[in-house]
Amino acid sequence: MFRATALAALALCAPLMALAAAADAPAQPSKPPRSSADILATAPAAVWRDVDPDNLLVMTLPQGQVLIELAPRFAPAHVANIRALARGGYYDGLAIVRVQDNFVTQWGDPNADDEDTGMKGKGKPFPEGAKPHLPAEFSIPLKGVPMTVLPDVDGWAPRVGQVDGFAAAADPKTGKAWLAHCYGSVGAGRGNAVDSSTGAELYAVIGQAPRGLDLNITVVGRVLKGMEFLSSLPRGGAAMGFYDKPEQRLGIERVALAAALPAEQRPALQVLRTDTPTWQELLDARRRRGGWFVHSPGYTDLCSAAVPVRVKPAAGPEVKLNEPRSPESRR
Amino acid sequence: MFRATALAALALCAPLMALAAAADAPAQPSKPPRSSADILATAPAAVWRDVDPDNLLVMTLPQGQVLIELAPRFAPAHVANIRALARGGYYDGLAIVRVQDNFVTQWGDPNADDEDTGMKGKGKPFPEGAKPHLPAEFSIPLKGVPMTVLPDVDGWAPRVGQVDGFAAAADPKTGKAWLAHCYGSVGAGRGNAVDSSTGAELYAVIGQAPRGLDLNITVVGRVLKGMEFLSSLPRGGAAMGFYDKPEQRLGIERVALAAALPAEQRPALQVLRTDTPTWQELLDARRRRGGWFVHSPGYTDLCSAAVPVRVKPAAGPEVKLNEPRSPESRR
Repeated sequence: MFRATALAALALCAPLMALAAAADAPAQPSKPPRSSADILATAPAAVWRDVDPDNLLVMTLPQGQVLIELAPRFAPAHVANIRALARGGYYDGLAIVRVQDNFVTQWGDPNADDEDTGMKGKGKPFPEGAKPHLPAEFSIPLKGVPMTVLPDVDGWAPRVGQVDGFAAAADPKTGKAWLAHCYGSVGAGRGNAVDSSTGAELYAVIGQAPRGLDLNITVVGRVLKGMEFLSSLPRGGAAMGFYDKPEQRLGIERVALAAALPAEQRPALQVLRTDTPTWQELLDARRRRGGWFVHSPGYTDLCSAAVPVRVKPAAGPEVKLNEPRSPESRR
Repeated sequence: MFRATALAALALCAPLMALAAAADAPAQPSKPPRSSADILATAPAAVWRDVDPDNLLVMTLPQGQVLIELAPRFAPAHVANIRALARGGYYDGLAIVRVQDNFVTQWGDPNADDEDTGMKGKGKPFPEGAKPHLPAEFSIPLKGVPMTVLPDVDGWAPRVGQVDGFAAAADPKTGKAWLAHCYGSVGAGRGNAVDSSTGAELYAVIGQAPRGLDLNITVVGRVLKGMEFLSSLPRGGAAMGFYDKPEQRLGIERVALAAALPAEQRPALQVLRTDTPTWQELLDARRRRGGWFVHSPGYTDLCSAAVPVRVKPAAGPEVKLNEPRSPESRR
């Protein structure tokens, strides 16, 4: 994509964007943005969307719970299969098999059929309702996808933004939309064939956003809470971060679909709606920094602009916020 | 930066870049790129630069060693101070005080003067030669900086590329250059005043590149090896990822400057020179994917394009490579 003419195009674009920046400077509002904590604390209740328990995986590890929101709009077949696998107790007793630094934590059945090692026939059987074969779901038609477009330029895709709280990208030229690989994104591991993922093997991104994986693998959701239990694991010593010895693999106690749990055990999470002034105010607060910051970037990128999550307030204003990172205070 | 006119500029730029991509398509070489492993294994010896022991910190933790290359071109005063602190054994017995998921691991003196808590006068004294006050070193003049420019567009800066193997950015308009915050970048923690960092407190990025910190803090180098010992730590439970209780902090056994170690104890590392065809071939291999990949991004970003590191071969071709991540094989 970046050859001589591309370089020429870039040479043309850079001054254009600089001109735009210069032209905009006088128009900048003098009022500094509020802190993200402030913005979220005072946002009206209506800007928060309840996470559907039918889209919420509750993965119990020895250290704590990982809560993953599934994205049926983007991967309906995989999400349906993951629901069936979870309802059938398939993941219970399986393990985290791979932790590769600055890349992914991956979990599944250590005895599953494996193209590379030749292992076959020893895997845990799928429960009733879970299909052994699914189509690849690398993208969906863009038409009708409600994206809150993020205008900040992205080099990986012509258009990026948020859809249902997920980081997404799109190409109007090809008419496709897809979920982006950001920190915390969850995807379905596959072999060489594009249609070789079933949702039995899943991974979460634990480092720099590997956007090169976009459109090459089915992304099924993102981690909303408990990410630290996946990112703080010892890295595997074998190639690609796999664990050499079985005893090194962390056992998964249980993976349940929240909808299948008794109502009082279902985690009640909320995700911010991005078609709101609150979201735009949060983005503005990321682009225009003050206080401890002496330089304002005037820009934010897709994976930095993670959509906030919170525990749904029980009855009053006592809320726990997973607020965007902000180093304004040193402590 | 991104207001109405900026959006208009982007609207103009996007089709230009698309046009460039389309125009380039017929010119694409038909020969697929070699794998990064191949490219590195067959690269001539001359493309590898020895890491200067005077720029190499050896941090010994219970789990293993973290090797950090310092960047005196960008932060001469901070690097000089860090050398003096290391030579004087200042860091020995200090601790990792903070691990914030998707952000940083930070270490230093838990009893250092602290603006926020009001703690004062209990810190470990600086050794001879280490200064208690340094100027801010957020950027340097761009003039004369030997950057291997990365043409792939970056939304955070008008120009990006590699300098001395470090991810860097620049703005020809302001005439400045600076080190970018990528995964593994190491910076000097500061308080509210821009000149309040001394190198006594350091942090490494353990998540999505926080490029918004660029030009706001002094970046002093990057982790070359042992990153996993910083990224796999339990996250701190207090605000900003600080550890609540002293006993949770991981103790640092020692931080030594490699040049101050006996010759046989100095780690012999090499970093790839980026002013080489090898580096361009590696970038090409990242932009044009094949094999397991069905979609080629035709793009790579600054922080994904980490410059390879290896242990200097002793006598023959037995080399250990820290190769770029590549998920071509599932195992």
